[in-house]
Amino acid sequence: MTFSDTVRAALDNKTKPVGSLGVIESLARQIAEVQQSLTPSAERCTLTIFAADHGMAAAGVSAFPSEVTRQMVLNFLSGGAAANVFARSTGANVQVVDAGVLGAPIEHPDLIQKRVAPGTRNAITEPAMSADQLEAALAAGDEIGRSLTCEVACFGEMGIGNTSSASLVSAKTLGLPIDALIGRGTGLDDAGLARKADLLAQAAQRTLTILDARTALQEYGGFEIAMMCGAMMAASETGRLVIIDGFIASAAALCALKLRPECAANFIYAHCSAESGHRRVLDAIQARPLLDLDLRLGEGTGALLAWPLVKAAAAMLREMASFESAGVSGPG
Amino acid sequence: MTFSDTVRAALDNKTKPVGSLGVIESLARQIAEVQQSLTPSAERCTLTIFAADHGMAAAGVSAFPSEVTRQMVLNFLSGGAAANVFARSTGANVQVVDAGVLGAPIEHPDLIQKRVAPGTRNAITEPAMSADQLEAALAAGDEIGRSLTCEVACFGEMGIGNTSSASLVSAKTLGLPIDALIGRGTGLDDAGLARKADLLAQAAQRTLTILDARTALQEYGGFEIAMMCGAMMAASETGRLVIIDGFIASAAALCALKLRPECAANFIYAHCSAESGHRRVLDAIQARPLLDLDLRLGEGTGALLAWPLVKAAAAMLREMASFESAGVSGPG
Repeated sequence: MTFSDTVRAALDNKTKPVGSLGVIESLARQIAEVQQSLTPSAERCTLTIFAADHGMAAAGVSAFPSEVTRQMVLNFLSGGAAANVFARSTGANVQVVDAGVLGAPIEHPDLIQKRVAPGTRNAITEPAMSADQLEAALAAGDEIGRSLTCEVACFGEMGIGNTSSASLVSAKTLGLPIDALIGRGTGLDDAGLARKADLLAQAAQRTLTILDARTALQEYGGFEIAMMCGAMMAASETGRLVIIDGFIASAAALCALKLRPECAANFIYAHCSAESGHRRVLDAIQARPLLDLDLRLGEGTGALLAWPLVKAAAAMLREMASFESAGVSGPG
Repeated sequence: MTFSDTVRAALDNKTKPVGSLGVIESLARQIAEVQQSLTPSAERCTLTIFAADHGMAAAGVSAFPSEVTRQMVLNFLSGGAAANVFARSTGANVQVVDAGVLGAPIEHPDLIQKRVAPGTRNAITEPAMSADQLEAALAAGDEIGRSLTCEVACFGEMGIGNTSSASLVSAKTLGLPIDALIGRGTGLDDAGLARKADLLAQAAQRTLTILDARTALQEYGGFEIAMMCGAMMAASETGRLVIIDGFIASAAALCALKLRPECAANFIYAHCSAESGHRRVLDAIQARPLLDLDLRLGEGTGALLAWPLVKAAAAMLREMASFESAGVSGPG
């Protein structure tokens, strides 16, 4: 009997009709495989939020000004953002990383300092980062992913302009037309959306239809997306469950899957975002997200809301009685 | 400014793009309205599981024998069932009610004793309960609903044969053909499903196409469904949020909505079950369930899995910083 057969038998012996916990049972199987355990645990969860700015933002791809990235980093550090509230509500830890916020370095004892540069270049007209900057971002992510001490790693992001970056990285990695992956981001109106679509079409024209993940990240990525990609790979490699948040996190996940396909075993998709294009990306990697709540905030908020399901799935396999142990009759 | 306008303004002032938390924002509005508070709370949750047996089970409507109801009551009391595991995982309390389990009374210090009778009569050929029994079940539910001390009430059930009861109660309450609401329950095969459909068609023929909620419960209900209905009404009336679990809980909720329409303000629909027919019931009451995870276990398991979303929604409105308080710029 293979380990997966053993897991399946253990689940089928729990005091419930076979398969009656649906997706929770699939999750339990995935968690058991990742931890190679019939008594798995998903009790400890850390959200790491990567923040960085985008040269493209100055061209007008977002409804919000770039200064909001820095302001939101301070909001994360003082515990007032949605991600903080959801982390407290679910019992997760939060850490915040400066991956490349515009302006002078932010001085704060709790901020993890991994600034590659104060924002990327304008990817509409030139590569967002140099090859060295990409490697620095991936390496910083790798270090952060390896330093985690939880079973469950959530990764979130903050960066004005980063739905544009995610659209371009995803389109080029998948070889899809950029139009299919453009959405309203933080809330563009129709005119703003048309302007964003024009700018991203220009940006997309600069390069081939399909790019390898490293090139896509260098040409169009944000430092936060590249760093998240590195962290996702390292967290997977070190045996953690990785909950993939929304549209922007999915762009990082796409790149991680290209660079290290074994990540697929560890990735759990939190939700399908209301950001147009996310469904296309999820379909392309055959991901079945756990939630569908019209979220489009990022920060890892969707991943945090999915964590209780992951925790419950592990607990179900670990703690539920079997038909024999509980003296319950089977069907028939 | 009405209270709902005030709530909407408070949500729109939180440090996030307007509407970007989707369904979580709708939930926060509902919770604020129920509690009439801009700092609402959904921190304490109790699951009450009602167990009872069904005369119909002896006719062969279920894949499991009736003795499983009693065995599962003992499993709930010793903490080994899925509902117990999910309650521990999410931090909810569990209480178990004998609403009418077959056989002698179960002696256990933690069991809440509200037995109406040792199982209903066979609803395929006669009314499941007398008018007095229905009133006793509703009254016991009322008492339990009023005695809760939590903000969030989840109600679950256990009763071999109770998807049949729920199908009949729902069909008659909504005036739908019974065929539309029959499913595999705990896991009938095709032959079992055909037998169940025949039996339920016989049962449905005994009465008019559409019945008032009391008559539907008396003719086809289980004691656990009627008691749950009473508890849902009382919990709503006393200002609690009520999370509606799966197909069987929805039959109780349907009756509660007919008997006390104001319940709609307090009801939150946890999930769309894999039990065929649940979607029809949810559509009929225009419910948008939070989760869609192919669950079909009952016991309140789906309600417990939805509670962290409710808790997070309340926390979001209560604790998130505003643009002013966090010094974050708005769109522009």
